[in-house]
Amino acid sequence: MRIVDLIEKKKHGEKHSKEEIQFLIDSLMNGTAADYQISAWLMAVYFNGLTEEETAILTECMIKSGEVVDFGELADSIIDKHSTGGVGDKVTITLIPLLAAAGVPVAKLSGRGLGHTGGTIDKLESIPGFNTNLTIDELIKQVKKINVAIGAQTQNLTPADGQLYAVRDVTSTVDSMPLIASSVVSKKIASGANNIVLDVKYGSGAFMKTAEDAVKLSKLMVKIGKLLNKSITAVITSMEEPLGRAVGNSVEIIESIEFLKGNITEGDIHDLTYSFATIALMQLGRYDNENDAMNYLKEIITSGKALEKFRELIKEQGGNPEIVDNYDLFEIPKYKIECKTNAAGYVQKIDAYKIAYACKLLGAGRETKKDPIDYSVGIFLNKKSGEGVNIGDVLYTIYSNDEDKAFVAQKYCDEAYMVSENKPNSSDMIYKIIRASEVEDV
Amino acid sequence: MRIVDLIEKKKHGEKHSKEEIQFLIDSLMNGTAADYQISAWLMAVYFNGLTEEETAILTECMIKSGEVVDFGELADSIIDKHSTGGVGDKVTITLIPLLAAAGVPVAKLSGRGLGHTGGTIDKLESIPGFNTNLTIDELIKQVKKINVAIGAQTQNLTPADGQLYAVRDVTSTVDSMPLIASSVVSKKIASGANNIVLDVKYGSGAFMKTAEDAVKLSKLMVKIGKLLNKSITAVITSMEEPLGRAVGNSVEIIESIEFLKGNITEGDIHDLTYSFATIALMQLGRYDNENDAMNYLKEIITSGKALEKFRELIKEQGGNPEIVDNYDLFEIPKYKIECKTNAAGYVQKIDAYKIAYACKLLGAGRETKKDPIDYSVGIFLNKKSGEGVNIGDVLYTIYSNDEDKAFVAQKYCDEAYMVSENKPNSSDMIYKIIRASEVEDV
Repeated sequence: MRIVDLIEKKKHGEKHSKEEIQFLIDSLMNGTAADYQISAWLMAVYFNGLTEEETAILTECMIKSGEVVDFGELADSIIDKHSTGGVGDKVTITLIPLLAAAGVPVAKLSGRGLGHTGGTIDKLESIPGFNTNLTIDELIKQVKKINVAIGAQTQNLTPADGQLYAVRDVTSTVDSMPLIASSVVSKKIASGANNIVLDVKYGSGAFMKTAEDAVKLSKLMVKIGKLLNKSITAVITSMEEPLGRAVGNSVEIIESIEFLKGNITEGDIHDLTYSFATIALMQLGRYDNENDAMNYLKEIITSGKALEKFRELIKEQGGNPEIVDNYDLFEIPKYKIECKTNAAGYVQKIDAYKIAYACKLLGAGRETKKDPIDYSVGIFLNKKSGEGVNIGDVLYTIYSNDEDKAFVAQKYCDEAYMVSENKPNSSDMIYKIIRASEVEDV
Repeated sequence: MRIVDLIEKKKHGEKHSKEEIQFLIDSLMNGTAADYQISAWLMAVYFNGLTEEETAILTECMIKSGEVVDFGELADSIIDKHSTGGVGDKVTITLIPLLAAAGVPVAKLSGRGLGHTGGTIDKLESIPGFNTNLTIDELIKQVKKINVAIGAQTQNLTPADGQLYAVRDVTSTVDSMPLIASSVVSKKIASGANNIVLDVKYGSGAFMKTAEDAVKLSKLMVKIGKLLNKSITAVITSMEEPLGRAVGNSVEIIESIEFLKGNITEGDIHDLTYSFATIALMQLGRYDNENDAMNYLKEIITSGKALEKFRELIKEQGGNPEIVDNYDLFEIPKYKIECKTNAAGYVQKIDAYKIAYACKLLGAGRETKKDPIDYSVGIFLNKKSGEGVNIGDVLYTIYSNDEDKAFVAQKYCDEAYMVSENKPNSSDMIYKIIRASEVEDV
């Protein structure tokens, strides 16, 4: 077999055999396929696609290229939730204690990630003392004890995906459905869960620009899951502006705690967390009726059980659980700048990208794996889309340790907000849910 | 400017500016563009093409990437003929003395090439003493003296094309019209002539499988010529079987001499040589009527002027002109094996690829630039398509210096011949001629 023949085949829109895809991934991993051949193949895939079967095979080959987490007997009962990423997305942090308190075992491995803020793991590490360096054995032990554990993913998962992505990134071959689908699903399956809920975002700031494309991608991922004997549900959500009001690290933890306390009773974070939790309960067969599941979850919040579970989680992982009641125990930034509007009317939209950029400027994220993160800085959106404002109202608050950086961040935030006279139409956060039972068999 | 953005642009079928193509070629040459980016761009070009203008710009950038031969005042009056390559193609060798004797100055640079036989230069070097190591100055001086000179191309022409081709070869991106067109035309223009006749072959053994594709490619090359102020005529010829009867090195020279002697009065070599010469005379404005040009050329052959010019050329370049009258002065191979048929009927077709392969086996060609060539070996096709045969007739003759190799070569030649009862329809060698005046302005 020769790589050049596989490129030729895909160029002409022909279907690869399992052996061919395995050969391609093997050649990528052992270095016998040159990067320029891989990129030519990727571009041919961009134009001619992969069938669902080919995509599933590619996914499987990428899974097998590295370590695969083994949760043992827990694998069938735990839920893994994954988001394709969004500004202010803290739904993993709100969801985990809620599900665990509702009796669903949660063992979560999460990456640190590069970006405008840290990843879920970094955000949790803004809690003084919180330790995320758990082995798989420690994770399993803790789940058996308190039903929940979260650790930093240090395993060498799907290295083939990493290598493919490095080439895709510089050859304009990122935006291919089968390549995105196999990348996301391979990583999730290698992370060890058999039940997966995917948050697939669409909108100007997301990979998928339209809801239609997000539906296509979601169906493909759910089908690949089916082909590989995993239960995947995809939730298609709009990402037109930041999720919730806080963007940063400790500020996002605080907003999550407010939700767990029952103080956030509407809006995107509230709606999404309840939706994901409901889907999880139904996917695991605990409920077959959405309303019943929802009512049960509300009870978990109002009774304080979810908050209590979060305290338990923090304590178990070495953190100070008192932060739940005293936010001053977080690292406090030097400057808290409340920025007011000189316009009246309604917030029409908030550009997520610009808020993210401002946040990065403040030091909330990192560019390379070794960069330090400033947990204390961030932005709080006092007003969100659809909310009315008067001249002099605080639009947003900047938390910063550097006056100059705050000044520049303010410029970006001002640009991010659009305020005008008429109240905008509100749109649903969740566009559609794609369940395994709803996609036809392949 | 970033390469990844140019890939993205071409991926979406957008048009490149002159600056962008120049940046791409510059980045290729100075190594700032990675091969995997170049190959991704090439694959995007395969799918979305290049406009005629983009192709002309790419051609110009490739020309400028290396040396350009300067024939000075001769540039406008000389003709350069190029063939996309064919088994037994000796038309350059028959054409050069004919044109020179007809008063057309011919300064030809030719490569050695890899393949089943040597290139034109290697074939000429089978003439004892023939020297092809001429500088451009020596070439010009000789053309001024005897109207003809041929040298080995040693200049570093179109290195960007060489680099692109190296990537195309291993990434299945060879068969793209604009990439083939820019590659051929850039090399020809860099070789210094302003008047170019291209032999564009089609058929199972050629790059272009169908006459329609060959027409498309030809029109594109002629248009690029127009955009770059060069006069190009493309002659589309069928390549279903070897050209002429001899395949090898000295055997091809001998067949060429037979043509110049007027002993070959019909068939492909006869027809093609006269056609190319007629086109050249008309392209240079010497004749505006095909019949007049043809009659003049016939006179050049029958009067012995063409043969005399070939003698003069050999002598001027240090070779022994007596070989023209005494073929025994060529190196003689040990074995001459006449292979007979045990079938009767008509030769239906001869597989050019198998004859070429047999020839290479005998040692007539080279795989790497350093391999030696055996000038004396080759194959002579005593019977060609359409000719009748009886049991016991000699079908072909093998010239070899090794009995075992001859045995294997015979096996391939036997497979190459198809003999059956009915006389096959003969088809025209020349499918179409595309002249600059016939393609619309761009």
